[in-house]
Amino acid sequence: MQELLIDLGTRSYPIFIGAGLLSRSDLLLPVFAGKASGDTFAVVTNTTVAALYLDAVRSALAGKRVFDVILPDGEQHKTMATVERIFDALAAARMNRDGALIALGGGVVGDMAGFAAACYQRGIAYVQMPTTLLAQVDSSVGGKTGVNHRAGKNLIGAFYQPVGVFADTATLDTLPERELGAGLAEVIKHGMLADAAFFHWLEDHLDQLMQRDPEALAHAIRRSCEIKARIVAMDEREAGVRALLNLGHSFGHVIEAATGYRDWLHGEAVGSGLLMASDLSHRLGWMSESDLHRVETVLKRAGLVRPAPRIGVDRALEYMGMDKKVRQDRIRLVLLKPLGQALVSAEYSTEALRGVLNSHFGAM
Amino acid sequence: MQELLIDLGTRSYPIFIGAGLLSRSDLLLPVFAGKASGDTFAVVTNTTVAALYLDAVRSALAGKRVFDVILPDGEQHKTMATVERIFDALAAARMNRDGALIALGGGVVGDMAGFAAACYQRGIAYVQMPTTLLAQVDSSVGGKTGVNHRAGKNLIGAFYQPVGVFADTATLDTLPERELGAGLAEVIKHGMLADAAFFHWLEDHLDQLMQRDPEALAHAIRRSCEIKARIVAMDEREAGVRALLNLGHSFGHVIEAATGYRDWLHGEAVGSGLLMASDLSHRLGWMSESDLHRVETVLKRAGLVRPAPRIGVDRALEYMGMDKKVRQDRIRLVLLKPLGQALVSAEYSTEALRGVLNSHFGAM
Repeated sequence: MQELLIDLGTRSYPIFIGAGLLSRSDLLLPVFAGKASGDTFAVVTNTTVAALYLDAVRSALAGKRVFDVILPDGEQHKTMATVERIFDALAAARMNRDGALIALGGGVVGDMAGFAAACYQRGIAYVQMPTTLLAQVDSSVGGKTGVNHRAGKNLIGAFYQPVGVFADTATLDTLPERELGAGLAEVIKHGMLADAAFFHWLEDHLDQLMQRDPEALAHAIRRSCEIKARIVAMDEREAGVRALLNLGHSFGHVIEAATGYRDWLHGEAVGSGLLMASDLSHRLGWMSESDLHRVETVLKRAGLVRPAPRIGVDRALEYMGMDKKVRQDRIRLVLLKPLGQALVSAEYSTEALRGVLNSHFGAM
Repeated sequence: MQELLIDLGTRSYPIFIGAGLLSRSDLLLPVFAGKASGDTFAVVTNTTVAALYLDAVRSALAGKRVFDVILPDGEQHKTMATVERIFDALAAARMNRDGALIALGGGVVGDMAGFAAACYQRGIAYVQMPTTLLAQVDSSVGGKTGVNHRAGKNLIGAFYQPVGVFADTATLDTLPERELGAGLAEVIKHGMLADAAFFHWLEDHLDQLMQRDPEALAHAIRRSCEIKARIVAMDEREAGVRALLNLGHSFGHVIEAATGYRDWLHGEAVGSGLLMASDLSHRLGWMSESDLHRVETVLKRAGLVRPAPRIGVDRALEYMGMDKKVRQDRIRLVLLKPLGQALVSAEYSTEALRGVLNSHFGAM
């Protein structure tokens, strides 16, 4: 097992990473000590995850008063209406502010359960138990919680830190192959934007990761969380440098918007976006051709390179927030200079950007 | 005009107190500087307050993009459904996280609009413009926001600080007499629990306060906010000493519960509760008979002493959370030792408590 401390002063918390952590009461109960003095625990999960892992978590809470809140599975349920179901369940169990909540599941469960914990009684202590690779490397760090609104994703939410994160690599054994790849996109992103040595390690260990080797996964999760934590610590409420974590996202967003947020997983869109950001960085002379090739190879091995929809350059620019009429108002993009070091810049030529978009979104 | 700085590190903010502040753009725009870079302002208010004061606030925002969110008036609308109306309006106006929100109204508007500001885009900058005395002295300080749930009042919410508070004493001219008295209950409470000299000042100036003299009101609001701020600064998330602010509330709660939260205003119930807490403190030998008499006199002059419902001692104890069967498990009460200094204690005799309850709630 690996342990990483996220240092946020009085809101610091540990991330435990390893196989078989969900049932470890010797780890779980101490993280609540001094933060949830009650004996009542709510485990918030969804139908899919409950069938697989709820018993393990319940065994860690033997002797405590435990109740489940089992939500429907799927991003379409990430709404305020579902969060209200959590509120209703906590209120029905007469949980007070000494109570404790555990979010067991992927990013959707974690975002909603974390938001419910942030708001119930103006904030109760909660633990994240992410069961997808994406959630383990992404939502473990940063304290973002929230729900979608018909006007936008994650429009309603809170910054609210858990008291601990349990990233159980054994839960990845049941993860569909595509979701594993989508999680790896964020891992690869962390290497690309901040740590060339970690990117190199990923090139050497991608096969083990794809085969779900627990030790390789634990190292990849730990290093990803460390990189993200270092950046978040500089910018907890997302005012500046945290934007670097959006490497690949402006391009990935074009794919997601063009496909109506269906068909492509977010991580898959980010994977393609990472290649486009690298392509632009290369065209600007900031990244070597061989490094661009290395990025493409790693993404391919993770199953992350697939053809983008051929929507054309102009529509792609619109989805990026650059209207034809105001095309000179370039948005700021996260780019690489060189591989292993990201920066936010509007100092790129529009022609280079159009070239990248044309090769990915242009007519065949 | 008086100005008081609430010192909370990076979340510090000013409280401006005086007549005619709502239209002061020279004060309003600077408090948003560096916190809301957008030019879009949402003014959240209710139908009653909008008719009286919305134009004044709009005049302070001349030249900006301003839109209103006008909610129905009344505590029964303090629900998540109403907060969702605020979210919908902000989203429809495409407000982003650079936007700014102004809560214009009493405690209900302030609690809901503050909660919406806490959650929209995971937190946007907002200003409180409280238009009742209760809101000016109570919700100006502490950062509590929230809504009711059918299982409990303020069950859902957030601790979220405004960037500024504008307590315009001119708005109190339109406040119904009973609501003025209910606000004074909290002012008197602050003197009783922490500042004997301020209590003495209140005895000397109660007539001016009841006549809504702007200077007397401004001083009373300022000193109340100072006292509350000092206590809240020691205990921002309500773990300990902040309980002192609940002086009178355990007794007042009996009245509210017995009357189904109708008929009595919260401040009126607190006013009677202050007398009961003083009565018990006196019976315990912690407070002199003359000080008890002074408390009763001030409360009477503020219109705050009326007969409590005659529900009997046992039911009163139940409403206080002391079941007959476990009567020896005394709850902790906020009491005075002496007037001007509150403490939290379970070191009182049950007989003394029963004596107090009998004289107020016992059969005639």
